[in-house]
Amino acid sequence: MKKIRIAVMGYGNLGRGVELALKQTPDMELVGIFSRREPSTLRPVFAESKVFRSDDILSMKNDIDVLILCGGSKSDLMTQSVQYAADFNVVDSFDTHAKIPEHLVAVGNATQKNGTVAIVSVGWDPGLFSLQRLLAESILPFGKTYTFWGKGVSQGHSDAVRRIEGVKMAVQYTVPVEAALDGVRGKNPPEYTTRQKHTRKCFVVALEGADKEKIREQIVTMPDYFADYDTEVDFISEAEFLKNHTKMPHGGLVIHNGETGREYEHSEIYEFSLKLDSNPEFTAGVLVAYARAAYRLAEEGQSGVRTILEIPPYLISPRSLGSLQKELL
Amino acid sequence: MKKIRIAVMGYGNLGRGVELALKQTPDMELVGIFSRREPSTLRPVFAESKVFRSDDILSMKNDIDVLILCGGSKSDLMTQSVQYAADFNVVDSFDTHAKIPEHLVAVGNATQKNGTVAIVSVGWDPGLFSLQRLLAESILPFGKTYTFWGKGVSQGHSDAVRRIEGVKMAVQYTVPVEAALDGVRGKNPPEYTTRQKHTRKCFVVALEGADKEKIREQIVTMPDYFADYDTEVDFISEAEFLKNHTKMPHGGLVIHNGETGREYEHSEIYEFSLKLDSNPEFTAGVLVAYARAAYRLAEEGQSGVRTILEIPPYLISPRSLGSLQKELL
Repeated sequence: MKKIRIAVMGYGNLGRGVELALKQTPDMELVGIFSRREPSTLRPVFAESKVFRSDDILSMKNDIDVLILCGGSKSDLMTQSVQYAADFNVVDSFDTHAKIPEHLVAVGNATQKNGTVAIVSVGWDPGLFSLQRLLAESILPFGKTYTFWGKGVSQGHSDAVRRIEGVKMAVQYTVPVEAALDGVRGKNPPEYTTRQKHTRKCFVVALEGADKEKIREQIVTMPDYFADYDTEVDFISEAEFLKNHTKMPHGGLVIHNGETGREYEHSEIYEFSLKLDSNPEFTAGVLVAYARAAYRLAEEGQSGVRTILEIPPYLISPRSLGSLQKELL
Repeated sequence: MKKIRIAVMGYGNLGRGVELALKQTPDMELVGIFSRREPSTLRPVFAESKVFRSDDILSMKNDIDVLILCGGSKSDLMTQSVQYAADFNVVDSFDTHAKIPEHLVAVGNATQKNGTVAIVSVGWDPGLFSLQRLLAESILPFGKTYTFWGKGVSQGHSDAVRRIEGVKMAVQYTVPVEAALDGVRGKNPPEYTTRQKHTRKCFVVALEGADKEKIREQIVTMPDYFADYDTEVDFISEAEFLKNHTKMPHGGLVIHNGETGREYEHSEIYEFSLKLDSNPEFTAGVLVAYARAAYRLAEEGQSGVRTILEIPPYLISPRSLGSLQKELL
């Protein structure tokens, strides 16, 4: 069987995750990793992975079925997805929630140039979490949906702590509040703000001689980032930091509490959760699965931009529809 | 806006659930409840719900957009879905797992007669659980999927207990084993049999003068039903039974434990759960949401048989795609 030929644009944690994920998908193969960096400076996970200059990708157009865009939402994807969707079937993980409608229009227009397929905002939030919210509120229209994030690393908050004088290394975990989780699963669930639903836990390695109390104070009073949250600061050794805090765990929950019955007397709790040791490797798994769908839609002659909400689920599976109906239903 | 006109065939707990669910969907309306019973003997939840003889349904063909079949899988649906799919867009909750492929072929053939749409095996298992299994194993192909059922009433096991001499009333709950839940969420999750994953808990009202020890012994040693499970039997008063054990709670979990990373060193736990006060009311919610999808597919000119695995998710929502993309992504 002909394998689906995948290329990766951008080689950070997510690109590396895609390289790894493709090793678990016998129906797909990695054509190459494309980067703005000099190819010889990249160290792919697998020696056999080929690395190319991003500028050369158009010349390999006929060798690539789907291009997975692994740049960042902030600086890369708004331009890259539009640029590459004109010539390639693409999948991206664009996650700037407020700009998604605008991104959809721009990428959709780009796909019209050569009739390509683009699936955007693929990942877990936006992505799987969005899908669960859609399913839950459609099935239980009288209800409330709650999203919790964590336990997981927040890059922005970690960076903010690292900028404090005297801090050598730091990581910040966002952690759901157990009492709020219990609250949203109960009868008459309350409204919660993001702040009531999450605490912030920082692990900090201080420079020798630094004033730890001052660092702690600067963290917990930092406006926007920490001041309105319950924030816990733990000082640890560099050795402990390197041993336990260099991974990228994340996760979260979508909980929908719906009411049914004549007097709305019945609670129906719909709950989805992820506990991820590696956020980028899991996200890469979602991107690769939806790259399969993009390929199939293009093979069917479809074109245009899509999100996870519109993709028939069976298109992401390597198995035949008949086997899914027989064995998973 | 024209409402989607829904009819219900069969008026047990599920049909009643659909009648209730339609009150929560402003874009749909109940045309009528059809039953083999004499209409005057039915007591719908709402006085305004119209009741008709099932034999009269063909004469109302032009008044019905989608017919939701609420009969039982054992005796009704294999014939009813085939019969009605010839003339109506239908949704059913056929749940005899082993016979689903056969059912799909028969219903699919029936839809060809007049170009109707049928969505079959809609509910939570088969249904939402199947969808979660598909998503999880596609995203995390190196992993294992586990399904747990409960805490919930098993009708077959409750019936078996009720047949024992000296039993006046009885209900049996299937309950997931906590240690097994923890096991499948951990590193190197073990294989479990259904029996290792579930215990059985019976609440029994004994007839006056009955030998309770003998009843307990007969339950826990009953082959197939209880002998190989950890079974707990509690004798309670009729008053307590009527107060606490006449509802139909159910639920369950789908847990997928996937491995990513070069050495498969990362665990990614994908988990979905339902905790339902009313199994039939929740299942009705799923049927109604997918009836919306059936209507839309038919409006697009599509025909044929589908399952939840093939339906683009946004088709089940009353909201526009643009609003879903903007607000749920």
